[in-house]
Amino acid sequence: MEFTVKQIAGLLGGEIEGEENLKISQLSKIEEGISGSISFLSNPKYEPYLYTTEASAVIVDKSFEPKKAFKTTLIRVESSYTAFTQLLQQYERIIKGDKRGIEQPSYLGQGTELGENPYLGAFAYVGTNCKIGKNVKIYPHAYVGDNVKIGDGTVIHSGVRIYNNTIIGQNCTFFANAVIGSDGFGFAPLPDGTYKTIPQLGNVVIEDNVSIGAGATIDCATMGSTVIRQGVKLDNLVQVGHNVEIGKNTVIAAQAGIAGSTKIGENCVIGGQAGFNGHITVPKGTKVGGQAGVTRTWEEEGLSLNGTPALELKDSLRSAAIFRKLPLLEKRVHELEKQNKEDKH
Amino acid sequence: MEFTVKQIAGLLGGEIEGEENLKISQLSKIEEGISGSISFLSNPKYEPYLYTTEASAVIVDKSFEPKKAFKTTLIRVESSYTAFTQLLQQYERIIKGDKRGIEQPSYLGQGTELGENPYLGAFAYVGTNCKIGKNVKIYPHAYVGDNVKIGDGTVIHSGVRIYNNTIIGQNCTFFANAVIGSDGFGFAPLPDGTYKTIPQLGNVVIEDNVSIGAGATIDCATMGSTVIRQGVKLDNLVQVGHNVEIGKNTVIAAQAGIAGSTKIGENCVIGGQAGFNGHITVPKGTKVGGQAGVTRTWEEEGLSLNGTPALELKDSLRSAAIFRKLPLLEKRVHELEKQNKEDKH
Amino acid sequence: MEFTVKQIAGLLGGEIEGEENLKISQLSKIEEGISGSISFLSNPKYEPYLYTTEASAVIVDKSFEPKKAFKTTLIRVESSYTAFTQLLQQYERIIKGDKRGIEQPSYLGQGTELGENPYLGAFAYVGTNCKIGKNVKIYPHAYVGDNVKIGDGTVIHSGVRIYNNTIIGQNCTFFANAVIGSDGFGFAPLPDGTYKTIPQLGNVVIEDNVSIGAGATIDCATMGSTVIRQGVKLDNLVQVGHNVEIGKNTVIAAQAGIAGSTKIGENCVIGGQAGFNGHITVPKGTKVGGQAGVTRTWEEEGLSLNGTPALELKDSLRSAAIFRKLPLLEKRVHELEKQNKEDKH
Repeated sequence: MEFTVKQIAGLLGGEIEGEENLKISQLSKIEEGISGSISFLSNPKYEPYLYTTEASAVIVDKSFEPKKAFKTTLIRVESSYTAFTQLLQQYERIIKGDKRGIEQPSYLGQGTELGENPYLGAFAYVGTNCKIGKNVKIYPHAYVGDNVKIGDGTVIHSGVRIYNNTIIGQNCTFFANAVIGSDGFGFAPLPDGTYKTIPQLGNVVIEDNVSIGAGATIDCATMGSTVIRQGVKLDNLVQVGHNVEIGKNTVIAAQAGIAGSTKIGENCVIGGQAGFNGHITVPKGTKVGGQAGVTRTWEEEGLSLNGTPALELKDSLRSAAIFRKLPLLEKRVHELEKQNKEDKH
Repeated sequence: MEFTVKQIAGLLGGEIEGEENLKISQLSKIEEGISGSISFLSNPKYEPYLYTTEASAVIVDKSFEPKKAFKTTLIRVESSYTAFTQLLQQYERIIKGDKRGIEQPSYLGQGTELGENPYLGAFAYVGTNCKIGKNVKIYPHAYVGDNVKIGDGTVIHSGVRIYNNTIIGQNCTFFANAVIGSDGFGFAPLPDGTYKTIPQLGNVVIEDNVSIGAGATIDCATMGSTVIRQGVKLDNLVQVGHNVEIGKNTVIAAQAGIAGSTKIGENCVIGGQAGFNGHITVPKGTKVGGQAGVTRTWEEEGLSLNGTPALELKDSLRSAAIFRKLPLLEKRVHELEKQNKEDKH
Repeated sequence: MEFTVKQIAGLLGGEIEGEENLKISQLSKIEEGISGSISFLSNPKYEPYLYTTEASAVIVDKSFEPKKAFKTTLIRVESSYTAFTQLLQQYERIIKGDKRGIEQPSYLGQGTELGENPYLGAFAYVGTNCKIGKNVKIYPHAYVGDNVKIGDGTVIHSGVRIYNNTIIGQNCTFFANAVIGSDGFGFAPLPDGTYKTIPQLGNVVIEDNVSIGAGATIDCATMGSTVIRQGVKLDNLVQVGHNVEIGKNTVIAAQAGIAGSTKIGENCVIGGQAGFNGHITVPKGTKVGGQAGVTRTWEEEGLSLNGTPALELKDSLRSAAIFRKLPLLEKRVHELEKQNKEDKH
């Protein structure tokens, strides 16, 4: 995984200004560039780093005019940002691997066929009557139950568990050990103090371009579907209860949890370890701080919420600021009481 | 998975009032009924929905007398609630599958025998000298270590990890990727700043009718046993530390965590993301709010606790209500100070 | 797994005072000793338990002089603490098993060789071009990607997922279902409200003597490495974001989460469910309470932090104490207002 500046310039259709035989083995940010790495300069804000960077080569726009001396080699291209992105993707393919084919032993249930150009890792298990799209990768030890649909280009990493009847769109990614479609937490109390299990008969529907983090868990619906709309990104260890719906392009950071039947709107941004009560609605564009506890439905779109129970951010910050000075406030009240008492005498 | 109203009425021993050839492919709540679904009416509170529901059929009590016109087909039975439950269970068996037999390749260690009527999924692993009861299901990729006992009717889903010497009762369910019996977090600090690992030599004992959520983790005891009593229900991603004991019929919502050696009483209800310090006791019937942090032992049974550090719910709510108005309280104090100052002049 | 007192005394080179033929089948703490168990007495604080313990035998220092009657059998050794630790380790080996050899079916990719004296469980998967040290144990269903290095004596439990290019030191332990090196949570918002995935091209580097809990997740770096220094202990379900660095000998309790690019210093002690914002620095020796939310960089070493947003412990406790009495404080302010009003008249 080592290339010369010349090889990279050739790949990008760029012109070299400097040493063409330098060896490049990694990518770097220009401000963190080290010898043997290639970086790029697009945003003028970062130009000063060009004159000090240790990166062996820097990709710049054709039009770039340096204002000082520098020691790195330049590769001039039409758009340095686009060229670097292209390089990133090539590099990613090398780093992450591009697995294809069917490793043995693996298990395919009756009535299940893989689409064109599959990867099925060793010890992967796909149940009966599944419909698997083209270019789907199913890594070793992944489990796919019965009657599951998986759209084209979706990637199921090692140890992911997908229960029966789950429906998954195109170009989704499930990171290792995520669990999709296990039973919702539904128990009805009985007079003797024990609980009766409420059958969980629904499924999970995941639309296109969704990313699910490592160890995240999404429960199936009691009836109907738990729904994750297109473009949603869930981080590691996020918990999604039964019958929840998450609106499109909402991103949820690690270890957040959403209790049953709650609806999260589109384009929300949810911080890590945040929690949501069940049966509430959070509208479009809501921002929720880390560790916040959202306990009720909010009507207005685009609010920032914070704290437990969650308040609007500005209220929460004001209260928190005084919380820090509570001992002082108490002292001030004590002082007033003393004065009042003295005044009486 | 499509039935006619006539077939379903036959199954339930009910009488049809309306179209007997309608096709039914799913179950629904009466207030969410859609064409092609069957619902039920038991609680009179829901009667108004009968007159508007889109459900193709509704199961009602024999004695039910409608007060308005409706367009759905009725199936009259002795008890509509019981009949619907029966239908739910049938449907569940179809949806969830009823796996039997031994798929290959799978692994059974020396001295281990499966009980009658087993399911052992492909790539499942059961170690040496295990005692596995009747009607136990062990799904693909489940791991069962050595010297493990599993009672009749227990179900171990895909990717569950059960360490050596664990003892599990009857009719328990372990959802995907739960981990039972990994080492407790025990490290003794040494003078040089490093830590020495304290051997974790105990096990986990799980009694009958316990349900453990996806990705939940239960540590083995340092010595003795971590104990989960009968009827306990743990939701996804719950963490149970070493030497913890959870009393019977206690339910714990997702992402809650219990530190080592803490005892939780019977019939407690614990909210999501709640946390418990180690070495404390929480008595019978305690209710703990979501995200609460229980930091000390409580003596009185049946309390509701909330907040961090947890207070009794009524105290916590009162304080939280004023917390929200802290800026106003500060202003009031400021106003008093101003008045006092003016009075002096 | 039953030994006589005589056998144990022989193993420890100790002298028996009492019954040498008693059967011992487990270890116990002296205050919890039951018949059939062996315990030890080292700290004089526990001496009273010697006179009441039900343990069949107790290991004591040679020099120990009892002050009362007792019914247990003594084994006298040079150092009772050392002898008991020795016994613990022997017992651990029996309890936990000492797996060796290669079970089938298992999978080894091209260019990968196992070091001397390996354990490779059935259904374990190791990708291409990995370097695996001596005495490494890889349990059933563990997944090791391509180009992974694992140092001597490291143990990978069942269901652990180690992504490509991870570098792991010696004598580390990964408990079941931990995930190392999955993609960091990096998405760039686009004008249409969707997100573009930022390629995550770095890896995870884990130094020697690290312990990673069950279900914990550690993301790979965007570029460069997420680094876990030597001696770090992470409990179950801990989340470590991309480009985080955790200093040596830091211990982090269950369900804590660290957002991307944050640096945690050496010898910190972090409580369960604590959360850390991204891009902050926490210095050496910091103690962080359970459920705390650390939102900013702290400069001073050795502080204790608590609450959300985290304050110094003493400030946090003072404010929390008044928080509990907020209704009273509000009443006192109200009283003052009333008095002022009356005074005006």
